[in-house]
Amino acid sequence: MPKKIFFTPGPSALYFTVEEHLKQAMRDQVMEINHRSAQAEGYFETAVGNLKALMNIPEEYSIFFLSSATEVWERQLQNLVNTNSFHYCFGAFSNRFYDFAKANKLNAVQQTAPFGELPDTNPDLIPENIELIGITLNETSTGVSFPLEDIYKIREARPNALIAVDGVSAFPVSELDFSKVDSAYFSVQKCFGLPAGLGVWVVSPRAVQAAEAKKNQGVIGTYQALPNLVKNAKKHQTTFTANVLGIYLLSKVSQDMLEKGIDVIRRESGYKAALLNHMVDAHPSLEHFVAERSLRSKTVTVANTKGDSQAIIDTLAKKGFVLGNGYGKFKGKQIRIASFPTHSKEQMELLVDVLNASI
Amino acid sequence: MPKKIFFTPGPSALYFTVEEHLKQAMRDQVMEINHRSAQAEGYFETAVGNLKALMNIPEEYSIFFLSSATEVWERQLQNLVNTNSFHYCFGAFSNRFYDFAKANKLNAVQQTAPFGELPDTNPDLIPENIELIGITLNETSTGVSFPLEDIYKIREARPNALIAVDGVSAFPVSELDFSKVDSAYFSVQKCFGLPAGLGVWVVSPRAVQAAEAKKNQGVIGTYQALPNLVKNAKKHQTTFTANVLGIYLLSKVSQDMLEKGIDVIRRESGYKAALLNHMVDAHPSLEHFVAERSLRSKTVTVANTKGDSQAIIDTLAKKGFVLGNGYGKFKGKQIRIASFPTHSKEQMELLVDVLNASI
Repeated sequence: MPKKIFFTPGPSALYFTVEEHLKQAMRDQVMEINHRSAQAEGYFETAVGNLKALMNIPEEYSIFFLSSATEVWERQLQNLVNTNSFHYCFGAFSNRFYDFAKANKLNAVQQTAPFGELPDTNPDLIPENIELIGITLNETSTGVSFPLEDIYKIREARPNALIAVDGVSAFPVSELDFSKVDSAYFSVQKCFGLPAGLGVWVVSPRAVQAAEAKKNQGVIGTYQALPNLVKNAKKHQTTFTANVLGIYLLSKVSQDMLEKGIDVIRRESGYKAALLNHMVDAHPSLEHFVAERSLRSKTVTVANTKGDSQAIIDTLAKKGFVLGNGYGKFKGKQIRIASFPTHSKEQMELLVDVLNASI
Repeated sequence: MPKKIFFTPGPSALYFTVEEHLKQAMRDQVMEINHRSAQAEGYFETAVGNLKALMNIPEEYSIFFLSSATEVWERQLQNLVNTNSFHYCFGAFSNRFYDFAKANKLNAVQQTAPFGELPDTNPDLIPENIELIGITLNETSTGVSFPLEDIYKIREARPNALIAVDGVSAFPVSELDFSKVDSAYFSVQKCFGLPAGLGVWVVSPRAVQAAEAKKNQGVIGTYQALPNLVKNAKKHQTTFTANVLGIYLLSKVSQDMLEKGIDVIRRESGYKAALLNHMVDAHPSLEHFVAERSLRSKTVTVANTKGDSQAIIDTLAKKGFVLGNGYGKFKGKQIRIASFPTHSKEQMELLVDVLNASI
């Protein structure tokens, strides 16, 4: 049976080089080496260097490997917030980070919008005493992206707050200026096209200082406390026996992306998103969930369907194309289509043709 | 170049079937499927069922998949302890769990022994008010095992305390009666011979109740809070986008172990440990670190070396045998040799021959 092509918004299609890297990993016994060996430290160091080069992350920022972006939500709150956090809530994932803050009994303030829309980003709405502002760059559940210029305005208006950016399904396609944020994170099974089981956390020196200050007053966790993450990362090590294979594959795929060129990847993303948006505009059975054109994500396109979306998904699956369903209460009412760096222009053109011909 | 055989005490040699399972995983696109799909739920359910069958875990116990055994240390303290924990400390890993309790500002009491020895296990030494008793079944840093009968005596003497057993490098070789403990956990890169990046947590109904009681009084974490783990596990799901490949491989290797038979695996472990112990007894350049014969681990053998152990390790590495070094301050002074289920009797006999001939 020919392989399916996954257009699901994560886990999604593997980056097209992953299978070869995995075979090489078996030959090199990557899965058997000690996680504190020079060999494993090499993978860590290469992955960090490549990510910094790929996304132009300031040299003085630290990069850590955790188990998932979900874990980073928790670690941010533990390490960086004593009392007051602020959250833009406009989808399942931004809401969940807010829920984590409430579960930690923090004074969590939210600015909300209905699914498919963006909250009011006027910085004057953010209370003065906020320690951390949580911003989701790309709401994977709705396909709404948060404008970068609005992040920079918030930074100017609230220079003392730490800005924490959820880059899941956005990095490395998003051109975020990392020097204007303090915490940014993603999981590798979206745009990087890797097997699930690894989260990446980028942290500014200012955020590390905030964690050290908080430590003097209370508890900031154990092995994932920021000072411990920093201590280990200086040795190119994780704080626990991490997914060494995942870090190895990330070091390889980030290298492949550097060789392709981030500008090419971003240009292609623009083309593929335009193709999908045009298809939805023109399709009689689909309509855009995100009404405001400028807010539509370049990597996750969400469309309302006439009739049950499951029927569309099933039809496409029979032809070897796996689409995402609507998230949560939109299940059965929407399709979600990922256009990640591994999805070629040709694959996307083919998908559009098949969608036009099938439904 | 022929492949090396890893006798390191974790990460270690892959279980001998893993490469084939990994190739099948690529063919079946296991790394691309949604972690909440029926396919992924199937891997979760199979892995749980196999682990229960393999280790005779009571049906009413829950099994969860986290990122590592290190994470389980933290989650146990968050979920199960309000104030008072007790720790048998006799090596790097048992000490580290105690350190986690101190970092959480708990009233953590320890019963200590020098590395290579066992603490006094007389239950009368455990204060009456202890909520959780931490026991390390197999101190991977020293090769000391904790007698099962002593665990059962502690259980009888302190029936109200939760007993938490660190089974890293012990399960499934250890014959622990799970019905007499409340929490037990391991990471898969030891005896299960899997790539690092997955922790397994076995929890009794009583422990779940303790977490629910604690939740009513305070914070027990977010996505890894026990009630949330239970809620997701009932659907055969993890609480985050976990290492699906790891769970898939665990479902396959646990099946392979069931087919081989746990009795055979345990009998072979006894044979291999006896072989190693005899070799150390007889070898002019080695001596047992664990003086008390009955405390010697069946899966991790630790020997003091005359002269620098690194020279021995280097000599063996040139012949394709990778041994573990001494842990921490014993680095350069000891070798550590894993005899896990994937290590065949023949491989172990060969290793003994090579060690006898080389040093």
